[in-house]
Amino acid sequence: MRKILIIGVGAGDPAQITIQAIEALNRADVFFIPDKGAEKSGLRQQRLKICDRYLKSAAHRFVEYKTPSRAKTPDYKADVAAWHEAIAATFEALFARELTEDQCGAFLVWGDPALYDSTLRIVETLHARGAVTFDYEIIPGISSVQALAAQHKIALNRIGEPVHITTGRKLRENVPENADSVVVMLDGEESFAALDDEDLEIFWGANIGCPEQALASGRLGDVKDRIKELRAKVRAAAGWVMDVYLLRKPMR
Amino acid sequence: MRKILIIGVGAGDPAQITIQAIEALNRADVFFIPDKGAEKSGLRQQRLKICDRYLKSAAHRFVEYKTPSRAKTPDYKADVAAWHEAIAATFEALFARELTEDQCGAFLVWGDPALYDSTLRIVETLHARGAVTFDYEIIPGISSVQALAAQHKIALNRIGEPVHITTGRKLRENVPENADSVVVMLDGEESFAALDDEDLEIFWGANIGCPEQALASGRLGDVKDRIKELRAKVRAAAGWVMDVYLLRKPMR
Repeated sequence: MRKILIIGVGAGDPAQITIQAIEALNRADVFFIPDKGAEKSGLRQQRLKICDRYLKSAAHRFVEYKTPSRAKTPDYKADVAAWHEAIAATFEALFARELTEDQCGAFLVWGDPALYDSTLRIVETLHARGAVTFDYEIIPGISSVQALAAQHKIALNRIGEPVHITTGRKLRENVPENADSVVVMLDGEESFAALDDEDLEIFWGANIGCPEQALASGRLGDVKDRIKELRAKVRAAAGWVMDVYLLRKPMR
Repeated sequence: MRKILIIGVGAGDPAQITIQAIEALNRADVFFIPDKGAEKSGLRQQRLKICDRYLKSAAHRFVEYKTPSRAKTPDYKADVAAWHEAIAATFEALFARELTEDQCGAFLVWGDPALYDSTLRIVETLHARGAVTFDYEIIPGISSVQALAAQHKIALNRIGEPVHITTGRKLRENVPENADSVVVMLDGEESFAALDDEDLEIFWGANIGCPEQALASGRLGDVKDRIKELRAKVRAAAGWVMDVYLLRKPMR
C-alpha cells in the first residue's frame, strides 16, 4: 500500500532534526515540496537543504506543487475549511499520479506536525475518504516553541503552572485568564504590540535556528518597538519571517 | 569556563533524539546521572543506553548522584522550593568536584528541558548564585506530548484553537474553561478518572516509545477503566510509568 510520511524537520536549525526523521527521509521515494510563491522561496530552499544534508542515496524524486491560497473573509473557519478542501484535492491528485501502490511519499513539515500545521489534518481527511488508498505516519519534530525556550534558556511553564499555546488571532480576541504562561504562534500581525498590559514579560524570537535569527526579551512596553524593528529586519534579510513568543506576568 | 549542557533526549524512543543532542552528548566530559532508587532504575538504564548508542569515543565519565526526595505536605510550592534547594546544593558540589574549569558536564533530560522539568530551573539558580562559575546551554528534545500526538496521529490543536498544557494537580483543581484541547502531564494520580464529564474524548499514552508502551483513546467514560488497567500493566512491566494525555470536548 502507498505510504505517506509527515515528517517534522525542526524549526530552522538543520541539526534540530531527529534520527527518526532522518530515517524517515531515507524511506521516501517522493518528496512533495510546496511552492508558496517567491516570498517563501527561502523556506523551500531550507527544505531542500535538509534533504541534501541527510539523504544517503539519490533514489528519490522531488515533486513541487502549488499551494492554493486562503481566502481572507471575516469567516475564518469557513475560509480554512475551503482552503483545506483545495489542498486536499491537490494532495489526492499527487498521491494518485506520483506514487505507485508500493511507494512512499513524504511531506517535510516545519516544527512539529501536531502543532498548527494543516498537513496532518488534510492527509487524515483523504485517508478517511479512501478515493486513493494509503497508510500514513507522523514523525514528531522540534517546534519553534521549544527552540524559543532553549534560546532564551527559560522553561515554558512556571513551577506546577500551566502553559497555554494559542494563536495571534485568539490573543487579539482576549488574553487567556489564569493561563500564567501564554505561547503565541501564527501571529502575522504583531498582536503583542496591541496588548493593554505593558508590564507583561515577553520572550520573543523569529526564524529561530536560521542564519537571520533574532531574539528579544523584557518588559513588553519596553521592548515591543524593538521587536517590530527586528521582525521587519528578519523579513527583509530572509524573505520570510516566522515568529513565536512567550508572555507571562512578572513574578510578584 | 565550565560548561553545563542540559540535553533533551526525547520521551523514550532512542531514535527520537536530535542531531544537535547527539553532538552535545559528544561534547560532554562528564554525565551526571540521577539515582532515583530501585523503582526508577529502568529510567537510568534508558539514559545509559542512549549514551552507549550515540557516544563516539570513551573519553567521558558517568557520575551518579542521589536525588533528594520531595516532601509531600499540603503546601506544594514550599515543598518544591525546599526540594529544588536540596538538588541545587547537590549540583553545586558536583560541578565543583567533578569538573575542572575547562570541562563540560551534561544532564540528560527526558522529553524537553523546557516543559515540567526542574533541571534548567536549578542550574539557572546556581548560575545566578555564582559560587561555582559556569556557562550553560539548553538542547530541546521531543516531549512525550509530541510523541503522544504522533502515535495517535492527531494534531494537538483543533483548527485555530488553543492547546492548554497542565498538570494532574491543576486538573484536579478545575478543568480549564475554553481551553478546547487540554494536555495533562505529571499526573501520578489518574486524575482523568475523577472528571465529571465522561463525554470528553481522551487520547492517552504511557512510556511512549519504550518497549512497554501502551495507548488508548475514546470516550472517557468508556475507556477510563481500561486506561487504569494498562497503566498498572506498564508499571509492572517497566518498573516505572510516565503517562500523558489529551482531553477535548467531542466535535459538535
